[in-house]
Amino acid sequence: MALDRLKKEETLAMRMRLIGQSCKLFYSDDPVKILRARGQYLFDENGERYLDCISNVHHVGHCHPSITKAAAAQMDLLNTNTRFLHDNIVLYADRLAATLPEKLCVFYFVNSGSEANDLALRLAQQYTQQEDVIVLDHAYHGHLMSLIDISPYKFRKLAGQKEWVHVAPLPDTYRGIYRENHPNPGQAYADTVKDLIEEVHRKGRKISAFFAESLPSVGGQIILPRGYSAKVAEYVRSAGGVFVADEVQTGFGRLGSHFWGFQQQGENFCPDIVTMGKPMGNGHPLACVATTVEIAEAFTANRVEYFNTFGGNPVSCAIGLAVLDVIETEDLRGNATRVGAHLKDLLTKLQTQHQIIGEVRGAGLFLGIELVTDREKRTPATKTAAFLRHEDRICVSTDGPWESVLKFKPPMCFSMEDAELVVQCIDRILTVATTAFYVGMHLLDIYCMRSLNTIKDSHKDLISHIHNFSVE
Amino acid sequence: MALDRLKKEETLAMRMRLIGQSCKLFYSDDPVKILRARGQYLFDENGERYLDCISNVHHVGHCHPSITKAAAAQMDLLNTNTRFLHDNIVLYADRLAATLPEKLCVFYFVNSGSEANDLALRLAQQYTQQEDVIVLDHAYHGHLMSLIDISPYKFRKLAGQKEWVHVAPLPDTYRGIYRENHPNPGQAYADTVKDLIEEVHRKGRKISAFFAESLPSVGGQIILPRGYSAKVAEYVRSAGGVFVADEVQTGFGRLGSHFWGFQQQGENFCPDIVTMGKPMGNGHPLACVATTVEIAEAFTANRVEYFNTFGGNPVSCAIGLAVLDVIETEDLRGNATRVGAHLKDLLTKLQTQHQIIGEVRGAGLFLGIELVTDREKRTPATKTAAFLRHEDRICVSTDGPWESVLKFKPPMCFSMEDAELVVQCIDRILTVATTAFYVGMHLLDIYCMRSLNTIKDSHKDLISHIHNFSVE
Repeated sequence: MALDRLKKEETLAMRMRLIGQSCKLFYSDDPVKILRARGQYLFDENGERYLDCISNVHHVGHCHPSITKAAAAQMDLLNTNTRFLHDNIVLYADRLAATLPEKLCVFYFVNSGSEANDLALRLAQQYTQQEDVIVLDHAYHGHLMSLIDISPYKFRKLAGQKEWVHVAPLPDTYRGIYRENHPNPGQAYADTVKDLIEEVHRKGRKISAFFAESLPSVGGQIILPRGYSAKVAEYVRSAGGVFVADEVQTGFGRLGSHFWGFQQQGENFCPDIVTMGKPMGNGHPLACVATTVEIAEAFTANRVEYFNTFGGNPVSCAIGLAVLDVIETEDLRGNATRVGAHLKDLLTKLQTQHQIIGEVRGAGLFLGIELVTDREKRTPATKTAAFLRHEDRICVSTDGPWESVLKFKPPMCFSMEDAELVVQCIDRILTVATTAFYVGMHLLDIYCMRSLNTIKDSHKDLISHIHNFSVE
Repeated sequence: MALDRLKKEETLAMRMRLIGQSCKLFYSDDPVKILRARGQYLFDENGERYLDCISNVHHVGHCHPSITKAAAAQMDLLNTNTRFLHDNIVLYADRLAATLPEKLCVFYFVNSGSEANDLALRLAQQYTQQEDVIVLDHAYHGHLMSLIDISPYKFRKLAGQKEWVHVAPLPDTYRGIYRENHPNPGQAYADTVKDLIEEVHRKGRKISAFFAESLPSVGGQIILPRGYSAKVAEYVRSAGGVFVADEVQTGFGRLGSHFWGFQQQGENFCPDIVTMGKPMGNGHPLACVATTVEIAEAFTANRVEYFNTFGGNPVSCAIGLAVLDVIETEDLRGNATRVGAHLKDLLTKLQTQHQIIGEVRGAGLFLGIELVTDREKRTPATKTAAFLRHEDRICVSTDGPWESVLKFKPPMCFSMEDAELVVQCIDRILTVATTAFYVGMHLLDIYCMRSLNTIKDSHKDLISHIHNFSVE
C-alpha cells in the first residue's frame, strides 16, 4: 500500500468537501498530515518526526506490535457478537475485575467512552428510579445527546441546561472558589455538592447520580482535593444517588501510582459505577462500564435485553487483553511514575524562570501547566498557550475554561529524553516570547511615531509575533 | 493462542458472574460456544459446524483474509484520530459517495449504528430547529438513551412514549391495516403519516424528522410498499422535517438489486440523512452518517466541534475500504441476487407443503418467513418459530412483534448449497412437527384417561415436544 496516495493539498480539499466541518482539524491554519507512527512519535508526509504529548488513546504506544499481532490473530479466528459464549470476554472481564475494588465486579462492553457514559446514566437512573444528575462545572462526558445534557462544557454552547441537571463547582484549588490556602478544600468543595443536593430536594426532585471524571481533563487537568470524593459519595448515597467515576481519560495506570484515577482518593472510597474508554484498546473502539451486582440486577429486573452489536466481541477483547499484558510486561505504570515525576520536576524548575507559568500540577503522565499573564491575578494566558500548542513539532494541547492549561497525556512509553526535549522546547519558546515582548515594546514606540507604510516587512512580522506572545 | 482455554461450563459460569445479565445469550437454555468461523460457517468447541443465516454484520464472510490483512497493515502503520489529515477517511468517504445519490455527499464517521442514529437525530433537530420525530411502530434504532426514546420496540417496555415522539403504523401489507389486497398500500400508509403530521400540528408542535429503517427488520423483515417513502418524504418536507433512512441493517448491497435499501423505493426518492453501521466494517466497530451540504452546514453553524475519538480513524477506514473492495471483486451483490432468489423460490415452494408458512418475503439476502397457526386469521406461530431458530445447527433468528418471523440475513457469501440445506432442514422440522401434532393429539387422548404418574418418561418428552410444536 502506498503510504501517501494523495498530495497534502488534495487530502485537505477532499476533507473540506466530504467530511462534516464540525469535525475539526488540529492546527487548522496549517493542518498536519501524519502517515505513520511508532511509540510516542508521529511522522508526516515528509518524514518529519513529531513528539506526541497528547495521544492518551495510544496508551502503550502507537502501532505496538503486540497489539497488532493479537488483533490480527483473533480477526483470523472469530469475531462474533456476545450472544455466543466466548472465552475472551470473560477472561478480559476477570482481568479488569482484578484491578478494581471487589464490589465493582459486573461488566458491560461497548465501543466508546460515550457509549459507556450513556449506559452508566441508564444504569444509575434505572437503579435509583430517579432522573436528576449532578455534574462538575466545565465537565465533558461525551458527544451523544444524553451526554451533552450532562456536560456543561457542551450544553452551554448548545441547548442549555436541562431542569434535571445540576452543576457543582469544579474543585479547582488554583482557580476555584476554595484555593490551595484553604485548610480543607476537599471538605469545602464536597459541601458545595451537599448544598446542591439540598437545593434539589427543596425543588421536590431527587438525585440519581453524581457524575465526575476522576481527574477532570477538559476542566483543565484538575487534581481533586484530598477527601473530596469519599465525602461526595457519602452525601450522594444518603440522598439515594450513586457515584459514577468517569475514567475514560484517566484509567489504565496513567497516574503511575494507581491503576484508576479514583484510587488517588484513598482506599475508603469506591464509586458505584466506573466508565472506561480511550486507552483501553490502544486506538481500537473499545470501552466498558463496571458496576456492582445490585445495580446490574436492577438493570436486569425489567427483563429488557441490552445488546451492543460490536461491544465485547472476541477481537475487541483480545486487543484489551493485549493492552493489559503490555502495561504489565513493559512496566508502563513504573515508567509513568518515573518519567512523569521527572517531567513535573523539570517543569517546576522552569516555573522559577518563567513568570508565565502559574502552576504545574498532575500525577504520572497526566500533567497540566497553567499559563498566566499575571501570577497574582492568575489571568489566563490563552494566546501563549495556543501558540505553544504546535511549535517545533511537539504536539501538546490546551484545555480548561480559558484554554490556558497546556496538558500532557502522552503514550505511556514516553521517555526521560522526551521529557527533557519538550521542556527545552517550552523554555526556548517562552524565552523568545519574553525577549519579543521587550523588543516589541520598543518597536511599538517607533510604530507610534511613524505611519504604517513606512514599517519594513520584517518589523510587521515582529509585531505579529508580539501580538501572539504578549497581547493576551 | 490456545483456542479453547476454558471448558464450556467454566466460560458459562464466568459469563454469569462477570457480564451483566441484560446481555443475553442465544439459546439461553443451552448456549453455544463458538471458537472459530469462516465465510458463512461457525465452529463450536467440538468442531461442529453451524450454518450462519443471521450474521449480517459479517457481511463479506467471517474472518475474510482481505479484511484481516488490511486491518493489520494499517494497525502497523498508524491509527490516529481525525484531527490529523489522513487519506483513508477521504478516500473512503469518496467511495461511499459514489454509491449514494449526489446530494448525500457529507460524511461523519462513528463507531456504531447507535452512534450514527444519535448523530442523525442531532443533525435533524439542529437543521430544523424542531424536536418532534415520527417513527414506525415496532421500530428499533439503537441502544442509546436518545434512541430508546424513538424505538417503540424498546420504549414500550421501558420509560414509555415521550411527548415529542409520534408512532406511525408499520407499513406491513401482511399484518398491517392495509394489506396486499389494497389497491395502493404505499399511498394509504403514507397518508397515515400525513394524518399524524396534522395531529402533531394541532398540538402546536412541529416535525423535525421521520425516522425509518429502509426495510424494517425488528418489525419483521418488512418490505415497504411501492411509493411509500417518496410520498412520506413529500409530506414530511412540506411540514419542515427531514427524512432519515436507517440503513444499519440493510445497506451495502444486501438486497442484491440495490446498494442501499432506500433505492428500492425508486429513483425519485432520496432521503436527507442516511445512517449505516453493522455490515460496514465486517465486525469492526464502524458506522457512518451521510447527509446533505445544507444539513451539515446547519450543524457547523454553531461552531461547536463534533469529535468522535475513534470514529473515522485510519484503521476503521482501511477496513471499510477493504469491505467495499471485497463486495466488488467477489460480486457479492450478484451472489445476493442469485442465491436470494433461489432461497426465496425454495421457501415459496415449501409454503405449498406446509400450512404454517403464511408468507415468504424479502429481497436478495434479506428474507423473512411468516409462520402462522392459521393462514386465514394469520395467527402468529411464535413457539414453532422459536423452536426452528436453533435446530440442526442452522442459526436463524426470529423477529416481528410476535417473534413469528423467521429471518435470513446471512453473510453475503451464502451459497446455493447453503440455501438448499437450510430449506431441507426447515422442511424436515416442519414435517416432524406436523406428525408430532397428530401423534400428540392421540397421546393427549390417552393422557386424559390416565393419571399423570402412569405416563412413561418417553411420553412426557413427546408431550413436551407437542407443546413446542402445536400449542401456540
